[in-house]
Amino acid sequence: MNASTLGKAIPQVNARSKVLGRAQYAGDVKVAGMLHGKVLRSPYPHARIVRIDTSAALALPGVKAVLTGADAPRAMWGVHHKERRILAEGVVRFAGEEVAAVAATTEEIARDALDLILVEYEELPAILTPEEALDEEAPGVHPGRNNVSHEIKFHLGDVDAGFAKADLVYEATYDCHAQYPGYLEPMATVATIDPDGRLQVWTSTQSIFQARMRLAAALEMPVSDIRVMQATTGGGFGGKMVEDANNLIAGLLAVKTGRPVRVVNNRLEDFLACCSSVPERITLKLGMAKDGRIVAKDVRITAECGAYSGLTAEVMHVTAMRSDNMHRLENVRSHATLVYTNNPPHGAFRGFGGAQMQFALNSHIHMMAEQLGLDPVEIHKLNAHEAGDTSIHGWKIGSTGLRECIDQCIDAIQWKAKRAGKGNQARGSRPRGVGMAAAMHVSGNRTIGNWDGSTVIVKINEDGRAVIHSGECDMGQGAMTMLSQVVAHELNIPLDHVHVVAPDTDISPYAIGSLASRVTIAAGNAAILAARKAREALIGLAATKLEVPVDGLEIVDGFIRSRNAPDKRATIAEIARLHIWRHDGEGLQVSATWDAKTVMHGDVHGNIAPAHSYAAQAVEVEVDTETGRVTVLDSYVSDDCGKAFNPLAVHGQSNGAAAQAMGWALYEQLQLENGRLANGNFADYNMPTADSIPLLRSGIVESNDPNGPYGAKGASETAILPGAPAIANAVYDAIGVRITDLPITPEKVLAGLRALRQAGEQEQGGSRHA
Amino acid sequence: MNASTLGKAIPQVNARSKVLGRAQYAGDVKVAGMLHGKVLRSPYPHARIVRIDTSAALALPGVKAVLTGADAPRAMWGVHHKERRILAEGVVRFAGEEVAAVAATTEEIARDALDLILVEYEELPAILTPEEALDEEAPGVHPGRNNVSHEIKFHLGDVDAGFAKADLVYEATYDCHAQYPGYLEPMATVATIDPDGRLQVWTSTQSIFQARMRLAAALEMPVSDIRVMQATTGGGFGGKMVEDANNLIAGLLAVKTGRPVRVVNNRLEDFLACCSSVPERITLKLGMAKDGRIVAKDVRITAECGAYSGLTAEVMHVTAMRSDNMHRLENVRSHATLVYTNNPPHGAFRGFGGAQMQFALNSHIHMMAEQLGLDPVEIHKLNAHEAGDTSIHGWKIGSTGLRECIDQCIDAIQWKAKRAGKGNQARGSRPRGVGMAAAMHVSGNRTIGNWDGSTVIVKINEDGRAVIHSGECDMGQGAMTMLSQVVAHELNIPLDHVHVVAPDTDISPYAIGSLASRVTIAAGNAAILAARKAREALIGLAATKLEVPVDGLEIVDGFIRSRNAPDKRATIAEIARLHIWRHDGEGLQVSATWDAKTVMHGDVHGNIAPAHSYAAQAVEVEVDTETGRVTVLDSYVSDDCGKAFNPLAVHGQSNGAAAQAMGWALYEQLQLENGRLANGNFADYNMPTADSIPLLRSGIVESNDPNGPYGAKGASETAILPGAPAIANAVYDAIGVRITDLPITPEKVLAGLRALRQAGEQEQGGSRHA
Repeated sequence: MNASTLGKAIPQVNARSKVLGRAQYAGDVKVAGMLHGKVLRSPYPHARIVRIDTSAALALPGVKAVLTGADAPRAMWGVHHKERRILAEGVVRFAGEEVAAVAATTEEIARDALDLILVEYEELPAILTPEEALDEEAPGVHPGRNNVSHEIKFHLGDVDAGFAKADLVYEATYDCHAQYPGYLEPMATVATIDPDGRLQVWTSTQSIFQARMRLAAALEMPVSDIRVMQATTGGGFGGKMVEDANNLIAGLLAVKTGRPVRVVNNRLEDFLACCSSVPERITLKLGMAKDGRIVAKDVRITAECGAYSGLTAEVMHVTAMRSDNMHRLENVRSHATLVYTNNPPHGAFRGFGGAQMQFALNSHIHMMAEQLGLDPVEIHKLNAHEAGDTSIHGWKIGSTGLRECIDQCIDAIQWKAKRAGKGNQARGSRPRGVGMAAAMHVSGNRTIGNWDGSTVIVKINEDGRAVIHSGECDMGQGAMTMLSQVVAHELNIPLDHVHVVAPDTDISPYAIGSLASRVTIAAGNAAILAARKAREALIGLAATKLEVPVDGLEIVDGFIRSRNAPDKRATIAEIARLHIWRHDGEGLQVSATWDAKTVMHGDVHGNIAPAHSYAAQAVEVEVDTETGRVTVLDSYVSDDCGKAFNPLAVHGQSNGAAAQAMGWALYEQLQLENGRLANGNFADYNMPTADSIPLLRSGIVESNDPNGPYGAKGASETAILPGAPAIANAVYDAIGVRITDLPITPEKVLAGLRALRQAGEQEQGGSRHA
Repeated sequence: MNASTLGKAIPQVNARSKVLGRAQYAGDVKVAGMLHGKVLRSPYPHARIVRIDTSAALALPGVKAVLTGADAPRAMWGVHHKERRILAEGVVRFAGEEVAAVAATTEEIARDALDLILVEYEELPAILTPEEALDEEAPGVHPGRNNVSHEIKFHLGDVDAGFAKADLVYEATYDCHAQYPGYLEPMATVATIDPDGRLQVWTSTQSIFQARMRLAAALEMPVSDIRVMQATTGGGFGGKMVEDANNLIAGLLAVKTGRPVRVVNNRLEDFLACCSSVPERITLKLGMAKDGRIVAKDVRITAECGAYSGLTAEVMHVTAMRSDNMHRLENVRSHATLVYTNNPPHGAFRGFGGAQMQFALNSHIHMMAEQLGLDPVEIHKLNAHEAGDTSIHGWKIGSTGLRECIDQCIDAIQWKAKRAGKGNQARGSRPRGVGMAAAMHVSGNRTIGNWDGSTVIVKINEDGRAVIHSGECDMGQGAMTMLSQVVAHELNIPLDHVHVVAPDTDISPYAIGSLASRVTIAAGNAAILAARKAREALIGLAATKLEVPVDGLEIVDGFIRSRNAPDKRATIAEIARLHIWRHDGEGLQVSATWDAKTVMHGDVHGNIAPAHSYAAQAVEVEVDTETGRVTVLDSYVSDDCGKAFNPLAVHGQSNGAAAQAMGWALYEQLQLENGRLANGNFADYNMPTADSIPLLRSGIVESNDPNGPYGAKGASETAILPGAPAIANAVYDAIGVRITDLPITPEKVLAGLRALRQAGEQEQGGSRHA
């Protein structure tokens, strides 16, 4: 019997433990004698710390440690720029920055102790917008440096010549705001000192090895003296790649007290400490031939990193160039500038900078299509790369289902009929409109370092069942299920005969982690290789025992048997035991690494990803012209994930992405008032709930990538990219108002309608006066 | 700089965590919501369980489960014979057998609940001695079987012809009693159900994989659904190989309650439930030529397994044949019978049956030497195998330091002078005497299965430090230190740059466990191979990077550098990182397996061990002829461990073994009264304390075994073997009383002296009447 679940809709292997409430999230880890940590944060976006008096806090019964910047190691942490201390010393640079940390016997005492820490601040002028930051007179957020954290410039082809021959040149500026990752589980860590004096950390993370590296650097310890274990992780969305200081503070408190310390962010703390997505202002200029062919693209970006830069340079990099690879372009120019402000830091977020540019680009294409009298769908399809193409940045397109995605989603919402019926549709108080957008994303990324691989270990137990070790983190997206499916498929054993061991730096093979939509392609391929090695070992040994040639054997129903004489057989368990109990035997354990055959040219160009995922989305919206409220009536996301191992998981990702995109487009907005977050809770920060989104629909396109495991590519990030522009385009389609700064709030809609009315009146008035 | 610690006296790598009280023994493991388990045991050695009423116990607040045999799986467990239930059903076969188990919120409640369980027994006639068991009329301890659990017979050469040509034939019968392992840490387990529903067990064990296998069988679960983790283990001495039912009961309670359950034996429970060593009656007949050459050996053994046989058949096997391989023998015959009784079960114990026969053989040689006018030392040396020999059972003697061991220990106690001065020494009220004995043991053993290997995984972290995975358990003997020393030596890195991960069935490569003195030879060799693989990988990569041939590189002071141009160098850490961050890179992790090149012929003969350890011991005793008390004044154990990686550890093993042998010889004795243990505590069961043993001395002989890692063999068990006969011989030397049944209690000494006096008086009387 074929036991494979590949391609079947199945619940995730860890779903049961989650729905039964048994899964151990980091905050659930309980260690005897555990203390509770709390963090005191700066109330000012920029201030000098004049004095800290911790004596009253220390005197509170139950308080075991009160640490300030003076107690933390001298090391600075950060991705590009080592610019941040675990606890601020001397200066705070954003409202929310960690100033002191308390460990106490209960969370309540720790919280009370925070109130007893007296910090005298001298407020300093704060830079709260990129414009202020770029003012030549502006003081530096970081001493001795101007406020440009990073800059990217490139020019390929001849952009000016391109514009010169264009039939239509269109330029507009788009503003994208920061989105809070909104995972169900705020950051949480339990840190303890193990009996040998090593630091042991359970945390919520997308990458145990990056977390270990960061802990080691910030705490000035060798990585080998630190063990990071991924607890069950309740969502990451990029926010748990370069986590907030949560696990650094937990580690510091554990080192200083010698006791286990639990630091669980409450929701407000998580809002303050996490990295929300990068706000960007994008000025896009496109030149198009009249058939819709894009002949020149010029991009200027101002991105804001906040007080510390983290991963934002990489994010901006993606904004600057990723969308160039979706179309057959010859002339592109980009100039992107990342600036510091005294706002809370930004960072990685699902889509990793892609959403910002896709909002601009897809809005742009819609507008230009209209001006050229074309359907935006046709412009996308006309310009789209085909499999076999090499993009302007050197990306080799191994597979693309972009056109199929577009067709699937526009058919699903009856694009043509609804566009055609436009004229017939009364522009009542609740006009409706349709919009679409398309996007691409990488599956894997060599820019992380000169490796984009993954190692998977497969161990066969004496009962013939399999154990998998991988350092890639399942943060809810399904990595464990994917690995289980692959190994079970290759060995033709039931899915529940496979167990994936949770990532642990002492145990797991080195791994980059769950980011850049890389896990299915990298770890999936490694899992195939490892499982095949295990299969070969089993079959080889069975061949000797059963005296059947290797080619004549198959694994079926728990047996390794002769294809021709099925009675010649042994159980997998028997062969697994024989693998040990013989001369030169050993427990069957194999390891395989797959590294992407990608290349880098310098630090920008090259075929950086082994595969690329595509998505398109079409939506229908209704706009209440009295209140300005936009309601998404229908949404269909099509995702080209190459091959869907588990359609249930792919639909889950697509629908989750669509909801998150709707949140960014319509509802969510971090309210900073003088640099201070005013809505750090789910009552005031409005993530979309069930009543604000339609029944989400999604479709899968399987383009079977030659580099993918069984053709698969990533399926977590691409689907978030087209949502916002599809909605903006639908709003424009409905009411003729083009919103270029997100989110599309009722106020902006009403303002747009008002402007439209005024323009119409002026036009009427003008014509009247003409 | 040479960072190696090989051959240096160093503290064990886990010593610090132990002396600081930080080490986590199984009883220290605390899991949130943990229940406490207690076991109700049979007060009768043999009885029918008529009825069990658990209702009152269940009604006690805090009690979460009361389980009886009816609740346990139908499976039976055992090594050869599957004959034992986790909880007895229908019949109990020894006083102490597990009848019911309680899980409650506190240990006190659990204990109270035991008193509320009403068990109605119908006492049955109990078989309490091997003689009763072998009576043809005796009922079977197990239904439908006679009481012979196992029988071994072999005859090599022509024993009768050997005796016929012997100049001296001597026969005597020796009785050896059971010794309690006396580890500091009683058996302890914490079992829990993990979020995926798997059983997760921390326990005190010598073999995680055997523990897992036994749990799986007894609980009727696939091994893959069970994870066994070795907690820090406070001694095993064989008693934690096939542990008592402690972890089975903990596992059962966890499965039934779905909650974590801790079951920690108190000392009495541990006495009742553990396997003490196998009591044996040995009738030994030796034929000797007048020069001391052994020409024939005939052995009859009656061994008692108690109610369940466990590993006792293997133990008896060793008694029957291991000592044959110490001497150049041509004619040996053995007949050994293992019998069931209704006494508590026996099992593996340091020396694994060797001590019993060495007691008989060394006592015998002393007596025959006297009769032949020879020094027993000369008889041992004359008969001893030399390196290159093959023994009568086919053992290939690769190295032997037996003669050096004998010379070293007899010199140390001034054997010749003290023996020569005998005549001058007044036989006052406290006569003194010297005694010696010699012994051998295996290092590894192929009889466990057709594999005697070990797998070691070495992982190099990005800081150039190493992590080791092995499934072999450190129960205090120093396996972790040994592995660390080997890997640090091969990589020439400091010892504290190496970390050994504790054995864990989900993580560790398959391993047999810590038994048969096999870990240093098997895992030590595997560690050499793995570390060399890691070194090769590092050197190979450095050669490419530094453009220096592989042969020209060395690892010194944290650098990989050119021998000729030391400035051409990279840190180990840089190369470890480069091993990841490159095309086709991966984290450096290598695995190597070493399997002994040993063979089995049938189930008895063959070259079963890759190496053999030797030991000799000489003691001086003083006998108080008024009280009968024997005091050991001096003791010197010489151990041929091939090569001492860590002399401190070897001396520790030798001295511990000498103390344990003195306990067996002089002080310890399990008092069974009608099958019921009467002295299950350290007040009444007298293990030797500091005031009852002399300053222990020990010496190391390094015979450099060709199969050993750097020449090393096992160094934990051999040293326990010669202690008892050396003392018995010294007592005989002091007072002329030959004690053949252990322990040598004052009562037996006084009885011997009385018999001697009576015999002397009779002789005098006889001569008077002549």
